[in-house]
Amino acid sequence: MTLPRSRFTPLMLITALCLFPAVTQAAESGPPDWLPALDTVWLAVAAALVFFMQAGFALLESGMSRAKNAVNVVMKNYVDVCLGSLAFWLVGYGLMFGFNPTGWFGQSHFALIGAENGDYMALLFQTMFAATAVTIASGAMAERTRYQAYLLGAVLITAIIYPVYGSWAWGGAHGGEGWLASLGFIDFAGSTVVHSIGGWVALAGVLVLGPRLGRFGPNGERRPIHGHNLTQVALGGFILWVGWFGFNGGSTGGADVSIGLINLNTHLSAAAGAAGALILLAILRQPVLLTTTVNASIGGLVGITAGAATMDPHFAVVTGLVSGMIVVAGTRLLESLGLDDVVGAVSAHGLAGAWGTLAAGLFLAGDLFNPMQVAVQLIGILAGFLWAFPMALLMYFLIDRTVGLRASTVDEQRGLDFSEHYEIGYPEFQADVLHKGKG
Amino acid sequence: MTLPRSRFTPLMLITALCLFPAVTQAAESGPPDWLPALDTVWLAVAAALVFFMQAGFALLESGMSRAKNAVNVVMKNYVDVCLGSLAFWLVGYGLMFGFNPTGWFGQSHFALIGAENGDYMALLFQTMFAATAVTIASGAMAERTRYQAYLLGAVLITAIIYPVYGSWAWGGAHGGEGWLASLGFIDFAGSTVVHSIGGWVALAGVLVLGPRLGRFGPNGERRPIHGHNLTQVALGGFILWVGWFGFNGGSTGGADVSIGLINLNTHLSAAAGAAGALILLAILRQPVLLTTTVNASIGGLVGITAGAATMDPHFAVVTGLVSGMIVVAGTRLLESLGLDDVVGAVSAHGLAGAWGTLAAGLFLAGDLFNPMQVAVQLIGILAGFLWAFPMALLMYFLIDRTVGLRASTVDEQRGLDFSEHYEIGYPEFQADVLHKGKG
Amino acid sequence: MTLPRSRFTPLMLITALCLFPAVTQAAESGPPDWLPALDTVWLAVAAALVFFMQAGFALLESGMSRAKNAVNVVMKNYVDVCLGSLAFWLVGYGLMFGFNPTGWFGQSHFALIGAENGDYMALLFQTMFAATAVTIASGAMAERTRYQAYLLGAVLITAIIYPVYGSWAWGGAHGGEGWLASLGFIDFAGSTVVHSIGGWVALAGVLVLGPRLGRFGPNGERRPIHGHNLTQVALGGFILWVGWFGFNGGSTGGADVSIGLINLNTHLSAAAGAAGALILLAILRQPVLLTTTVNASIGGLVGITAGAATMDPHFAVVTGLVSGMIVVAGTRLLESLGLDDVVGAVSAHGLAGAWGTLAAGLFLAGDLFNPMQVAVQLIGILAGFLWAFPMALLMYFLIDRTVGLRASTVDEQRGLDFSEHYEIGYPEFQADVLHKGKG
Repeated sequence: MTLPRSRFTPLMLITALCLFPAVTQAAESGPPDWLPALDTVWLAVAAALVFFMQAGFALLESGMSRAKNAVNVVMKNYVDVCLGSLAFWLVGYGLMFGFNPTGWFGQSHFALIGAENGDYMALLFQTMFAATAVTIASGAMAERTRYQAYLLGAVLITAIIYPVYGSWAWGGAHGGEGWLASLGFIDFAGSTVVHSIGGWVALAGVLVLGPRLGRFGPNGERRPIHGHNLTQVALGGFILWVGWFGFNGGSTGGADVSIGLINLNTHLSAAAGAAGALILLAILRQPVLLTTTVNASIGGLVGITAGAATMDPHFAVVTGLVSGMIVVAGTRLLESLGLDDVVGAVSAHGLAGAWGTLAAGLFLAGDLFNPMQVAVQLIGILAGFLWAFPMALLMYFLIDRTVGLRASTVDEQRGLDFSEHYEIGYPEFQADVLHKGKG
Repeated sequence: MTLPRSRFTPLMLITALCLFPAVTQAAESGPPDWLPALDTVWLAVAAALVFFMQAGFALLESGMSRAKNAVNVVMKNYVDVCLGSLAFWLVGYGLMFGFNPTGWFGQSHFALIGAENGDYMALLFQTMFAATAVTIASGAMAERTRYQAYLLGAVLITAIIYPVYGSWAWGGAHGGEGWLASLGFIDFAGSTVVHSIGGWVALAGVLVLGPRLGRFGPNGERRPIHGHNLTQVALGGFILWVGWFGFNGGSTGGADVSIGLINLNTHLSAAAGAAGALILLAILRQPVLLTTTVNASIGGLVGITAGAATMDPHFAVVTGLVSGMIVVAGTRLLESLGLDDVVGAVSAHGLAGAWGTLAAGLFLAGDLFNPMQVAVQLIGILAGFLWAFPMALLMYFLIDRTVGLRASTVDEQRGLDFSEHYEIGYPEFQADVLHKGKG
Repeated sequence: MTLPRSRFTPLMLITALCLFPAVTQAAESGPPDWLPALDTVWLAVAAALVFFMQAGFALLESGMSRAKNAVNVVMKNYVDVCLGSLAFWLVGYGLMFGFNPTGWFGQSHFALIGAENGDYMALLFQTMFAATAVTIASGAMAERTRYQAYLLGAVLITAIIYPVYGSWAWGGAHGGEGWLASLGFIDFAGSTVVHSIGGWVALAGVLVLGPRLGRFGPNGERRPIHGHNLTQVALGGFILWVGWFGFNGGSTGGADVSIGLINLNTHLSAAAGAAGALILLAILRQPVLLTTTVNASIGGLVGITAGAATMDPHFAVVTGLVSGMIVVAGTRLLESLGLDDVVGAVSAHGLAGAWGTLAAGLFLAGDLFNPMQVAVQLIGILAGFLWAFPMALLMYFLIDRTVGLRASTVDEQRGLDFSEHYEIGYPEFQADVLHKGKG
């Protein structure tokens, strides 16, 4: 078999062996030469869908920001994929999927040296995941982060922070096994590996940066800052949702009938995420904002990511409902702590990802509420936080002390588009915005 | 075979048996274990494409509405998928595809109880179709419908109106057969099942609601209300067009060489739809608006949906040309009757769908203009209208009398974003819009 | 085998025979009946992705234009696909892929007469390529070209200019062989066939049209005209990038493990394209605009298109880096020559395409820097320019003398939306724009 399927997650192998013996048997008796082409097709589709999520993030984050920072936000999203993809090719892929004798990081396949045919598609697909993890921070840190400082952080996340944790949970495709994988940790498509890691990095960034000017009053009272284009936020949400069918569906590592269950669970959990927020806000008798609705459905998507392959659909609905409620509650919690996460990324990715990783252990089909599995899940969740949060805190602290993380007050007031990019997003419609200037 | 292919439409079985005997023979002599994985991959792709159509509808409908209702329109589109997907899982799928002894509705598989592996992908794919049907009404009823009343209607459509008719034409995957299917009704991917049903529901909604304030003068003279973002309308059109390659192509129920013909027909008919509108308007010496062009291509897509698998490409061009002309003529007809369909959904989905269903009978490859087939098609078209229109009329009437369907005059003038959602779409650009207030 | 795989490019056959003997052997010993369905699925996906590029072009070109021409730009993009698809079905496909005894143009399969099953998907996929080639000119010629004159040109390009050159490089699917193909010309997915041809046509259009009013001062000094929506430009860039995974990946003509290498190369080159522009502009100590970044990544995509299947990934990075620099340098060169290419299409498609075609010869895996191959590549590049540029020059000259290519000064000042389409893109936000009027 050309494609190294076991690369993506050990769970997949277990799933394949347990649920679909007919398929694996057929691989021996049938014509094995067709499988790689079919797997390649599916992963090519899935990689394209996951790449498209970058557009979703860019639209969502830009729409939730003010117009004077629109170019800055989309430039961060566009260029972090570009630089991050090169960094992941050079360093990250080797650290994450290279030969892993200790279980703590990979040590081969840097810049694809020694690559076999199957590594090409695997690198492509995994690059999209790395790009997703890194983009999560950009929205949380929007409207006040210096562009070059952000990009430096993005490269370090893609090259080091993301792949090292990844090697613990998914590593060992070229020999060896990650230590979390060897415990039996279940994180099918990365509720923790991708989303919580991204969320904890975002939390560190938000802490180091501090809130935007005017976000909180002198006595800490909350002052909402409205995004400039909510249609665009909804489009971003739709695109992320579409992309997730590749994110979760492609994490099979190849073509498989289990994609039906996986993508159905993905869809139901996203729908239930929005429903969960609706229900909680109806109980609280508060309005259901568009941004909350979209974030809650993203929370549902993040939440199901760990257990999409091993959960029955009605548990996917439960996972999603709780995820949506966590997004609502988490956003309020952060706000009450004086933290300014522009797009709610810490809640939608960090907290919902942690819950989803737990849910994957709680609702494991055929082995519900197994305390050992739940314990392993908690170890994985905790390990993710203890790795990513302090590392990102240190990284952003050092960036702040060297190149400077936060934009100057004047630049922030004028908008980062003008001060960092020498152009504005909507020149015919921002005459007054520019003149008012102070945001 | 794991995936219940015969679920989608009886026509497919006929097509498969008649046109591609080599393929079905291979299923016996070849290795049958590969087919389900390949079918799953194709349906996963198709389901993602059809889901993406929701973004297309949201952009198209929002762009054709005024800025003060932009959030309202996209929220309807976003949340009807969420609630509709849960309703279809709980009720609709069972009514449409469950065991169907009478031919009039299904009676099993509610909430996926008793589901086999193949049901997961089938439910996912069919959920996207149900979401499409329900979204059609939202655009027609834009800018004056109360948000919660709309959502209540959306859930009822997804749970009852759409699946019951669907069971007549496509039902019986788990035993039994729909009564229209048993007559030999051809509606490959749902010109009637999805689009006309959606269009007739929209017509009922438009009738119960009445026109927007200011849409017609005191003597009935037409006063056009311009949409706020035509670029967005075109993007919506492109996305719908892309999504249709999954909508029609995926209605094979699995991987098949016939997808080539199906998607070529789909593309040619869409192109011809726009060309048809161009030609008719050139004859009438009237300008070809962007909204008309996009709607005419959608009309072409709707029109080919019934016969995409059983028509030669040059008849697909004919079907599209006529569809585009019908969209132009139908929009004018409705306007002259004092009906206010904001996005032209009744013409593009209802009328073009009816024409397409007829065309599928007229242009059946190898059996052109067979009067018996044409009669069956007319029965199916009529049955769709007689089921969906009165049911929707009753539903919206009851909703209007209980929770209230139409927004108050003040709310409509101020815009539904502010009054129903407590936020506006483009806060930095709508200062004057808000102050003017009266739309 | 039903699908005529050799249709797309002779290189594919060579690639398949050399790199993947296991696959081709399996085609004889394994069950050949599955391959067509799998190939069909992949090409259906790829065709949908390439079609989606039209939305990318529309957004990119419209965003880089002023708001007063937004409807005009997107209408051109929407309607050229519609009319171009019909023209390619009637004429272009036959000229490009029909029986080709002389090597200079095809002579059969007009309007699909004599088509076999495999022709349906081939026509669909190739129609999307033709639509891409034709759309390239629309952006370069934006904001001053009469709508109907543009559409007339688009039909002629799709019907004649594009397919004739295409037949030289890719022709002969129904017998015969193109003369460039018989020399061993490598243009896997069309760096020259699609992009340079489109770029040279755009150059001719720009020359015949002359610059927009106010683009250059009385002494030739450059006066930048800013696009109206840069978020939209970035979204267009993301969509083009996604679409390219179908553009290059689908040019295999079917499912194949080589898609892994192809799409990885595609992605890395796009990322490197943006990085190349960043590096060059850092050296020049000039700001990196969003439009430049997006164009440079598109340059990277165009550059890798010829050699994606036959290059090692590190050479894909080199190809992309150079492509990005060429986009920056080429845009400046054109500007210094007083040419007004609104979106930079001549550089990103014409020049980067020529470089990419050369790179495919230079970096051929297993046969690096073979002077004979490089010579053949140069012949192909030159032949492309010598065919497309004079033909397009003649065409636009004749169009200008008959129906008139350039809009009147008054119409250009007022904006083409109002004068050619009787509607404006953002009526609620352009009150002042309309009153100012003079752009």
